[in-house]
Amino acid sequence: MVEIQLPSPPTLEWEGDESGILKLVDQTLLPQTLQVLEVHDSKTLIEAIQRLAIRGAPALGVAAAYGAVLVARESKSPHAFLEGLKALRASRPTAVNLFLALDRAETLFDQNIQQGLSLDAIPALLLTLAINLHKEDQELCLAMGRNGAALLQDGMRVLTHCNTGRFATAGIGTAFGVLVTAHAQGKDLLVYADETRPLLQGARLTAFEIQEQNMRGSLLCDGAGPGLILAGEVDAILVGADRIAANGDTANKVGTLPLALAAHRTGTPFYVVAPSTTLDPATPSGEMIPIEMRDPHEVSLGLGEGRCPDGFPAVNPAFDVTPCDLITALVSEKGIATPPFQGWIQDWANNCR
Amino acid sequence: MVEIQLPSPPTLEWEGDESGILKLVDQTLLPQTLQVLEVHDSKTLIEAIQRLAIRGAPALGVAAAYGAVLVARESKSPHAFLEGLKALRASRPTAVNLFLALDRAETLFDQNIQQGLSLDAIPALLLTLAINLHKEDQELCLAMGRNGAALLQDGMRVLTHCNTGRFATAGIGTAFGVLVTAHAQGKDLLVYADETRPLLQGARLTAFEIQEQNMRGSLLCDGAGPGLILAGEVDAILVGADRIAANGDTANKVGTLPLALAAHRTGTPFYVVAPSTTLDPATPSGEMIPIEMRDPHEVSLGLGEGRCPDGFPAVNPAFDVTPCDLITALVSEKGIATPPFQGWIQDWANNCR
Repeated sequence: MVEIQLPSPPTLEWEGDESGILKLVDQTLLPQTLQVLEVHDSKTLIEAIQRLAIRGAPALGVAAAYGAVLVARESKSPHAFLEGLKALRASRPTAVNLFLALDRAETLFDQNIQQGLSLDAIPALLLTLAINLHKEDQELCLAMGRNGAALLQDGMRVLTHCNTGRFATAGIGTAFGVLVTAHAQGKDLLVYADETRPLLQGARLTAFEIQEQNMRGSLLCDGAGPGLILAGEVDAILVGADRIAANGDTANKVGTLPLALAAHRTGTPFYVVAPSTTLDPATPSGEMIPIEMRDPHEVSLGLGEGRCPDGFPAVNPAFDVTPCDLITALVSEKGIATPPFQGWIQDWANNCR
Repeated sequence: MVEIQLPSPPTLEWEGDESGILKLVDQTLLPQTLQVLEVHDSKTLIEAIQRLAIRGAPALGVAAAYGAVLVARESKSPHAFLEGLKALRASRPTAVNLFLALDRAETLFDQNIQQGLSLDAIPALLLTLAINLHKEDQELCLAMGRNGAALLQDGMRVLTHCNTGRFATAGIGTAFGVLVTAHAQGKDLLVYADETRPLLQGARLTAFEIQEQNMRGSLLCDGAGPGLILAGEVDAILVGADRIAANGDTANKVGTLPLALAAHRTGTPFYVVAPSTTLDPATPSGEMIPIEMRDPHEVSLGLGEGRCPDGFPAVNPAFDVTPCDLITALVSEKGIATPPFQGWIQDWANNCR
């Protein structure tokens, strides 16, 4: 098996014991500067999350778990702790992984307080939880990487969207982790990265990761991918997922669907790579997935001053839904699911297979 | 029939007799400033074309015809005139309309010089040609507008890409001219405008035109359209064309194809609006249309400083090709063509029907 090193400095890491600090790469400074932000208190972490210094669903989950340690050591009472968690929870209202991590922290807290443990002992317990979640995320990434890399051959030209690599997770990434793994296996890939308007996670973060990994890559405007796919210049498309419904319909960063439509027309493989925690078997299909509508100014002002008429309206959906029939396979840490996805999703969500 | 006024100042106009000047809206200053550039000589026009102060295939054709007047009055010999035309021709190497206009100017020049006309009389002749081409383009736009507007109903939500309005032509436009016509007929439309990376013609020019026409509109990132279409939030898509092959395959600004793929899946009408001069019956199908690859820096630097790693490569196709089976109808000044397009295109190109 190929050994894969995470680049340094890591996207996030805890330094020291429960009185230590959380260190984050400040992603707002990328791709120009790779600078580490030292987080000593929960207020600083909340600010960092709000200004997107750290983002990406899995990375946010791990950061929040460490955040619970910060909250615990700042709290003089159980009430203060729960209020602190609430503030952390409100930092990104749509970040499911963040909520899940904080739910686990809260459950652990409740159990131990009920059993009479002193408040002073809580930070150490929560740090153990966070470290476990951190390792778990890294292992999920490695497993997805191994599973997905089996689908890629030497010399392939692959297209990816948004950022799904080490800056989106605590490990090597989801879709991008597959590329990192294949590359580590000695497969030479050409990676087309969509710039991913409006927030440019592809141009800012994925392009940086491609360079950091010494991979061959090229940036694309979001409108260009389908033309390249129909022209036969793309061998596979790999994307992440924000939420996968029971039938396999997949919500992911806006701009994913056009790639799937083009891939389907040409028979180009379209792979969704996501941990099984992304599965939502309680939601029957994609139409039921609510689409977050974000600030129109991300579109109209994100281009720089004076690039559209002052005050012109914009519509800014954060995600689109790719219907399951356009997806060649779902790759999770548990394996590779092929259509029909329903059974796989049920089994994976129930921890079978 | 509804009277449609062109907004003022016009995109381009000639002032005075053959010793007059060409006045252009400097499109590089839009959407912030609507400023007129006065062009007294062919060198200034060439610069204006090169820095995209004027762009759009039909508008470039008309501007070039006026440019021939400038060249003629600067030329002391037939040789100097032909050299001057050559320089004008080189200003935008892929602008077919510009070449066609200059071919007509050159033919007129040759005929008259052979018949013994003095050089001094040439500018007035060429001005008449240019004015005729200008009127012709305006009439083509009005006819396309009338034909296309019949396809639109009150209350429709329409999606368009790039800029195909008054800043791309000498008249009301092609696809956008249809929207202007329908609006003038009293149909209330909601116009979604793709921002159209990398050069943002949608955000800069189409959004301006929507505002100028007092239409309702909203800007979209280029990746967002297909999601809106699949969610049932778009009633029709209207785009222009750079070149239409004999079978109807259509090359247009990159980012057009994803809209057509989404429209096809949902049965949403996808209309291509272009004058019959855009038809290229000598090219059997879209695969034979060469795609201009533009400067990668338009992608990597066009977002502003530091939005992708320094020197990161980019691929920047100017166009994509929409296969004819994804197109509901072609609209030209001659009418509405429905599939199969082959016969229509042959007839329209031969000036029948």
